[in-house]
Amino acid sequence: MPSSTTPLPSAGFSITVRVSVTADPAAIGRLTTAAGEAGAVVTAVDVVDSDHVTLVADLTCDTADTAHADQVVAALEGLVGVEIRKVSDRTFLLHLGGKIEVTPRVSLRNRDELSRAYTPGVARVCQAIADNPADARSLTIKRNTVAVVSDGSAVLGLGNLGPAASLPVMEGKAALFKRFGGVDAWPVVLDTQDSDEIVSIVKAIAPAYGGINLEDIAAPRCFEIEARLREVLDIPVFHDDQHGTAICVLAALTNALRVVGKQLSQVKVVVSGTGAAGTAIIKLLLRQGVGDVIAYDRPGALHRKMSDLSPDWRWLAEHTNRDGYAGDLPGALRGADVFIGVSAPNLLTGADIAGMADQAIVFALANPDPEVDPREARAHAAIVATGRSDQPNQINNVLAFPGVFRGMLDAHAGSFNAAMAVAAAQAIADVVGEEKINPMVIVPSVFDARVAPAVAAAVRDAAKAEPTA
Amino acid sequence: MPSSTTPLPSAGFSITVRVSVTADPAAIGRLTTAAGEAGAVVTAVDVVDSDHVTLVADLTCDTADTAHADQVVAALEGLVGVEIRKVSDRTFLLHLGGKIEVTPRVSLRNRDELSRAYTPGVARVCQAIADNPADARSLTIKRNTVAVVSDGSAVLGLGNLGPAASLPVMEGKAALFKRFGGVDAWPVVLDTQDSDEIVSIVKAIAPAYGGINLEDIAAPRCFEIEARLREVLDIPVFHDDQHGTAICVLAALTNALRVVGKQLSQVKVVVSGTGAAGTAIIKLLLRQGVGDVIAYDRPGALHRKMSDLSPDWRWLAEHTNRDGYAGDLPGALRGADVFIGVSAPNLLTGADIAGMADQAIVFALANPDPEVDPREARAHAAIVATGRSDQPNQINNVLAFPGVFRGMLDAHAGSFNAAMAVAAAQAIADVVGEEKINPMVIVPSVFDARVAPAVAAAVRDAAKAEPTA
Repeated sequence: MPSSTTPLPSAGFSITVRVSVTADPAAIGRLTTAAGEAGAVVTAVDVVDSDHVTLVADLTCDTADTAHADQVVAALEGLVGVEIRKVSDRTFLLHLGGKIEVTPRVSLRNRDELSRAYTPGVARVCQAIADNPADARSLTIKRNTVAVVSDGSAVLGLGNLGPAASLPVMEGKAALFKRFGGVDAWPVVLDTQDSDEIVSIVKAIAPAYGGINLEDIAAPRCFEIEARLREVLDIPVFHDDQHGTAICVLAALTNALRVVGKQLSQVKVVVSGTGAAGTAIIKLLLRQGVGDVIAYDRPGALHRKMSDLSPDWRWLAEHTNRDGYAGDLPGALRGADVFIGVSAPNLLTGADIAGMADQAIVFALANPDPEVDPREARAHAAIVATGRSDQPNQINNVLAFPGVFRGMLDAHAGSFNAAMAVAAAQAIADVVGEEKINPMVIVPSVFDARVAPAVAAAVRDAAKAEPTA
Repeated sequence: MPSSTTPLPSAGFSITVRVSVTADPAAIGRLTTAAGEAGAVVTAVDVVDSDHVTLVADLTCDTADTAHADQVVAALEGLVGVEIRKVSDRTFLLHLGGKIEVTPRVSLRNRDELSRAYTPGVARVCQAIADNPADARSLTIKRNTVAVVSDGSAVLGLGNLGPAASLPVMEGKAALFKRFGGVDAWPVVLDTQDSDEIVSIVKAIAPAYGGINLEDIAAPRCFEIEARLREVLDIPVFHDDQHGTAICVLAALTNALRVVGKQLSQVKVVVSGTGAAGTAIIKLLLRQGVGDVIAYDRPGALHRKMSDLSPDWRWLAEHTNRDGYAGDLPGALRGADVFIGVSAPNLLTGADIAGMADQAIVFALANPDPEVDPREARAHAAIVATGRSDQPNQINNVLAFPGVFRGMLDAHAGSFNAAMAVAAAQAIADVVGEEKINPMVIVPSVFDARVAPAVAAAVRDAAKAEPTA
């Protein structure tokens, strides 16, 4: 077994190893044992060919990362009588050719159908929209379509990889939009990181879309781009790394506080990381009246007496850290009720978590490797959540963004606002239900089919209560 | 029956009229007769409800245009015992909600699938592309995806309707790309008509695409935008209004000349309209060694002695019109072998066509209403083709663009060139086959499943012969 500090095996690093092995009754057992001893989680064994002397088998297992996968393959190769035929990476196989496609919603079987969907019939539809632009909402894809816009400047936790390398994320996001929200989403990856240019490009492409989802754009540019787009566009602009994360964190925190019996207005929260996510989380928590927040980033705990802060940090320093704490992150955690990490892997140990208040809540959301090993955190905190799909309490933006955009599109919302964020968070929290809620279940499963419709309804109602278009 | 100058009824203007009518054996007959006498083509009658005194029926018929549809409804309403319940426009019904959607190609049923398609697994795919940018061709949608880009400045024959009103055309085009070429195409309609801005936007969005299809951008800006994009991009840029049309015209002309037994190098061709399509047609015909061309546009027949011509017209004046003809369009036609119209409706009469050479060829491609009524032209010319789906010899770009892009994507072509255009035209012409070719069949049906693969193979071969990337 891997030690508690070894990264966890995950389906994201699943490999299929085709091996030939001497045909004897214990052959398969030797393979699975070797893989298990090397720290892999075997998920399938399929014998694909055999004769009197040899078995050919596909062994599929989750590994922790590329280096670990190599170790597992080496362990198999070290067995007597085993020969490696081929190693396939299931994640790469799945991405071949891209993860989304464009499909006609109309049949084009004969000339009549062609002449209605395209020329000459389509001319009348064009003219109708020219005469009454609002008809684009009913007669085109605008009704149901969202642009997933990135400049590739902050791709997952990987950094500034540029537009082409960000495309697999945006495609995945588009697939999730359809799967969970019935929303048609299209990746728009931009070969520029100039804020002015991004704003003018998104403005120019907007006529085809009913909403803009900004994704993986580095802070602080993301704040400026979002703010300027909101000014110039009449459709909602939603930076998911900010607001999607903030909605999910508020939902999870709402239920976590229910479990431990604390009030939002009384808890002390430490937020590590004040990028897009951290800043939006802090602003939403402040809006909801949280007791105190300490924001922690490269300069340390942000506080009023600091000089030379950027405007965004200055704002945070002035609106958080009631007592002017100026020490390190473990020190900030001492006595705190809630830790929210949206920063970097392995900043904290179990001992740091042990210093928090009783019934501590730890959301260690750095992806893929959390701020603290969730197994260590769980030894000391009442509730632990991560961003990982292979751990309990996964705080995953897919709980929010499909339903949020579903609701905004259905309401023909002209903008996104904080009332929608709060409504969405409450809807997510309420899906769990009094009878199911417990320390290991503070958020619904991302596969809970009730989530997106509940979020959509809440956002629709919020849009009607506070019309934006 | 409508006279020969009445626009033709078309499925693009199909309406369904729900009527209640006194229940007697002749009731349905009275309805269909009245509709037919009003010039409509009845395509279906469905009785949807009936009792002892009343029938409720849906009468579906093709009409010529909106005004004609109103006349047909009025004719039905004028019948004794008939009451109009509802008039539905089948073209508008088909466009509701848009004509394309974005569909996941991966299943997202459980956490393992989610962790391969999205985080954490997707991170490795992003990193692989960052390390080796060429991998974007295999691991993302770029492999199979084309942007259909328009600024809405020349939407069909309707003019400058702007981006939102052009969207139904671009969606239709995307649907056709998938239906006929297996190509994923996405509408990019731009809220700007500034050439510099269009070039920089298309350059910025290009990382997600394996090709750019420009559409419905007005001349002469389309020439500059295309030329500049070709310089800055490493993927093919193809203005369909130019090259798609030129390919199809060359294909049709190749077969038409086979039928009448003339040679390209000997015929005299008159081209009416020197916008995007006309200019590209003329350039391709000149490249293929056509005998003589007269280009006709607003200034008249373009010839060397004209002054104050725009650079594009100047080029045409200097490369066409061998004899310096300076008269009107009917005069230019006198003795000409081929007329190609890509201009405006009803410029010519049957008498003008009668003045052409023996075995004349008339391609009257203005859409939806041709330069000359095809029924009148057919009385005097050996071969008549139009852009209409309800007439024989429809010269429709859908014969070319799906296969052209299929071939370019499969070849990983870095640009489009004239050799590909000629290869594509020859492939389209050859699909018809010696034994099928006749004056009413000079191009294959757009539904002929052999066309796109043949075009794709020809373009792929041309790309290999003349590597562009």
